[in-house]
Amino acid sequence: MQDRPLSLPLLMDGIEGRFSHKTVSTQHIGFHTTATYGEIGQRIRRLAGALDHLRIPHSARVGSFGWNSQRHLELYMAVPCTNRILHTINHRLFADDIAYIVNDAEDDVLFVDRSILDVVWPLIDRFDTVRHLIVMDDGPGPQIPNDPRVHDYEELIAAAQPVATFDLPDERTAAALCYTSGTTGRPKGVLYDHRSIVLHAMTLLMTDTFAISESDVVMPIVPMFHVNAWGLPYAAMMSGARLALPGRAMQPTQLAETIEAARVTFAAAVSTIWRGVLPHLQGRQLPTLRRLVSGGGPLPASLSRQYDEQVGVPLSSSWGMTETSPLVCSSRIPSDQPALDTTDRIDTLCLPGPPVPLTALRLQHEDGTLAPHDGVASGELQVAGPTIAGDYYGHTDGSTAFTDDGWLRTGDVATIDPRGFVRIVDRTKDLIKSGGEWISSVELENAIMTSPEISEAAVIGTPHDKWGERPLAYVVPVDGSKITPESIRTHLHGLIANWWIPDEILILDEIPKTPTGKISKLALRQHITEPAT
Amino acid sequence: MQDRPLSLPLLMDGIEGRFSHKTVSTQHIGFHTTATYGEIGQRIRRLAGALDHLRIPHSARVGSFGWNSQRHLELYMAVPCTNRILHTINHRLFADDIAYIVNDAEDDVLFVDRSILDVVWPLIDRFDTVRHLIVMDDGPGPQIPNDPRVHDYEELIAAAQPVATFDLPDERTAAALCYTSGTTGRPKGVLYDHRSIVLHAMTLLMTDTFAISESDVVMPIVPMFHVNAWGLPYAAMMSGARLALPGRAMQPTQLAETIEAARVTFAAAVSTIWRGVLPHLQGRQLPTLRRLVSGGGPLPASLSRQYDEQVGVPLSSSWGMTETSPLVCSSRIPSDQPALDTTDRIDTLCLPGPPVPLTALRLQHEDGTLAPHDGVASGELQVAGPTIAGDYYGHTDGSTAFTDDGWLRTGDVATIDPRGFVRIVDRTKDLIKSGGEWISSVELENAIMTSPEISEAAVIGTPHDKWGERPLAYVVPVDGSKITPESIRTHLHGLIANWWIPDEILILDEIPKTPTGKISKLALRQHITEPAT
Repeated sequence: MQDRPLSLPLLMDGIEGRFSHKTVSTQHIGFHTTATYGEIGQRIRRLAGALDHLRIPHSARVGSFGWNSQRHLELYMAVPCTNRILHTINHRLFADDIAYIVNDAEDDVLFVDRSILDVVWPLIDRFDTVRHLIVMDDGPGPQIPNDPRVHDYEELIAAAQPVATFDLPDERTAAALCYTSGTTGRPKGVLYDHRSIVLHAMTLLMTDTFAISESDVVMPIVPMFHVNAWGLPYAAMMSGARLALPGRAMQPTQLAETIEAARVTFAAAVSTIWRGVLPHLQGRQLPTLRRLVSGGGPLPASLSRQYDEQVGVPLSSSWGMTETSPLVCSSRIPSDQPALDTTDRIDTLCLPGPPVPLTALRLQHEDGTLAPHDGVASGELQVAGPTIAGDYYGHTDGSTAFTDDGWLRTGDVATIDPRGFVRIVDRTKDLIKSGGEWISSVELENAIMTSPEISEAAVIGTPHDKWGERPLAYVVPVDGSKITPESIRTHLHGLIANWWIPDEILILDEIPKTPTGKISKLALRQHITEPAT
Repeated sequence: MQDRPLSLPLLMDGIEGRFSHKTVSTQHIGFHTTATYGEIGQRIRRLAGALDHLRIPHSARVGSFGWNSQRHLELYMAVPCTNRILHTINHRLFADDIAYIVNDAEDDVLFVDRSILDVVWPLIDRFDTVRHLIVMDDGPGPQIPNDPRVHDYEELIAAAQPVATFDLPDERTAAALCYTSGTTGRPKGVLYDHRSIVLHAMTLLMTDTFAISESDVVMPIVPMFHVNAWGLPYAAMMSGARLALPGRAMQPTQLAETIEAARVTFAAAVSTIWRGVLPHLQGRQLPTLRRLVSGGGPLPASLSRQYDEQVGVPLSSSWGMTETSPLVCSSRIPSDQPALDTTDRIDTLCLPGPPVPLTALRLQHEDGTLAPHDGVASGELQVAGPTIAGDYYGHTDGSTAFTDDGWLRTGDVATIDPRGFVRIVDRTKDLIKSGGEWISSVELENAIMTSPEISEAAVIGTPHDKWGERPLAYVVPVDGSKITPESIRTHLHGLIANWWIPDEILILDEIPKTPTGKISKLALRQHITEPAT
């Protein structure tokens, strides 16, 4: 067979050729812009020329602070196609983490949306290696600094020579870099290569995963600064699907407007975003919508059911990590269970689902033996495959995140049923040991969330003299609810073992989140160890 | 990213695990057998042990003469997973070609269906390298020779030690070998590696190609002895689709029965098979059928329309070659043409379609310049990609089938429209030059085939004193038709330029075919150069 690398220049053939008439739209505040893939292909070649003009070395890291936009998409191609590494950075991280990440990656240049300048520019003198900062002007925002290091994106590409040929013979060349959100310890970088990005995009085109096709209008609400927006921009360019990018119009009502106006068929977001968007989707014309995927945390069946009833499409689940490109599991209904009733269908769609074809899963007990895939036995979920990280960027010396035989340790405790359907039981560090027996904080949260009066729940273990640990539940009621700890305990009777029912239930207006929008159990634990003020 | 090869042992995870309950059925004459993937996984491991027991060296060629059956599927996995090469052989070739192919490949061992023994055994002493012949007993058939070289498949695997682990670190290891049908010169071998087979199977799972999914029942009518049955067995094992294998029950009425009885959702065959099967599908219950693919030659719109009207599913086209794994193009309706009427939809589905994601196409003029993809300009279709051959087996010294820059020359003349849709205009060697202008034999055949009274047509060029060449048409009428050369010429008026209309039209009962069922223009040309007898 011909020796043709699985590398991103392969995608240029489609976007400059057979998909050149298809469009990418970016939502701004109050208006949107549209370009064809053909036009974007030309801009990618000019941007590539601009990177050469800035004398950015091969394998150098090109940092980006950006919303989901056409320019960010251009960086997604121009940077790796010229043998440089696109390092996307979450601008919602704490300043110290941002400074740490930029310095750990040794970014040579930063591309920054104007609206994010107020986060980035104040840190400029803490960045040890950054030589240039290119502003992507996305409309009214902070003043653009008058500084020799600062360039304008559009001026730069207008002046650049387009690069005619992208030459990347080695598919294992690094293409993109993303740091984990760092719930434990310092953020760690995950380096994706051309091969893994191409294989991952192929996976998203499969009927049993996301089924992305030429007829789709794909809306990645998941950010392009995190795990390549789940690879959706690359899958869209590979398939010829149109892209509807939300830009910084990320308010729930704006997202709902974009879904309707762009005639979106497929969208992906974390469940907290979907919860916010739901009321704004009601009454809209959504005839093209076929699939709404939720990831980044457990998907409550109650929320999926509300989407099914009120929007006509249930939310379906997927599962992955920064270290896994990210898609590992995508939920679906097994073909031998066509007669499931609505409740069972939705419960099934809220599980992570079975693994994608190239990825292998196993469950490991603490003693190193493997657990059977019988839907009952649980163990740490471990993952292997060509789209799964084998180490962390710059830290190749035996991280505890990898087993001796090279599998990724996810830190999740799971069961896998005989059909391959994964159920996350808990994080290894979130299991609660009470009276010598394990309580799953995730199962307890799910039981609490079956109440329609509760919008969010989080359970952690607290030290207890007699039992070792006891569960403590934090609960956010839906608007107008009058729930009490006692009514919640009553609701839980019969749903779970009585000794699992928390003695202490705290009702809050909001549960603290990480910068990526996940519930921060770290913050909750700090809360209980700090003296009351 | 982890260094995990794209190799066939990857598929064992699915067939022994999450798809172990899914089934593979094989049709025999009058009955069928069924096994689960779980059972087949065990048999693959035993067969692998039997190959070790026979001391077949690594990289040795293991020849197979077999119908589409479960045992052939077991060979598809056990041979390449143990670092040997499965060499599938078309038993319908002429004896001399079979002997040439087995000797050119230097097959070490042959696996032969009992029903094919009468083709293979008489040649045994002409095979220079074959040490063993393993009979796969598929029911009543020729006497099994009493010879020390002959073994029984079931006895062999019953006695074998199952192989516990398949270790194939290099994805470029050769996995399978198939010879072209050799319409010009000697048959030439195409060697597929693990990487190309895995990538090709991934492609078949994509929504815009064949969309093979876990919910499918896939019936490869295209033979497993030719181009891996278009990769469908591997795609089924990757996705968990059930397989319905027709065995030697290849008569049209038997195929139609299997399609109904196995509740087939997806089937693939050449158009001549589909033409024969059509009358036998009428009146059957086919509620699950979703897609019928035709390949291996032009698909007449009239036939596709008959399927649409009488079976409820139009035939759709695909295009490829032995050298291309084979899928290069798969037809579909572009998303921006949803309002096509039925005629235009079916005409579109009868084109080869646009290329699959990893494969690049170009059109080259005779002078080496490239033709634009404007749907008008034509040139030789050339193909590049990781699932496309770069040379022939044992003949790496610059075949004329490859360009200097490594693209495959298909020998087809084509146009490509701006959306990437390919239209095959002719074979380079089948163009007819008449009065200094080109006549496309394919377009002329298509024009003749628009008559509902004609079931087959073939056009070749014949020498002509005045015009250089003139077209000569061979035509097979449908049963009961009274067509004449004159009525055909009348039909052609207005459909094509008048000077394209053949002066000579011969009406035959049958057009000669190659052993793979394609129209043999070589035989037709020999017919006109031989004196009438």
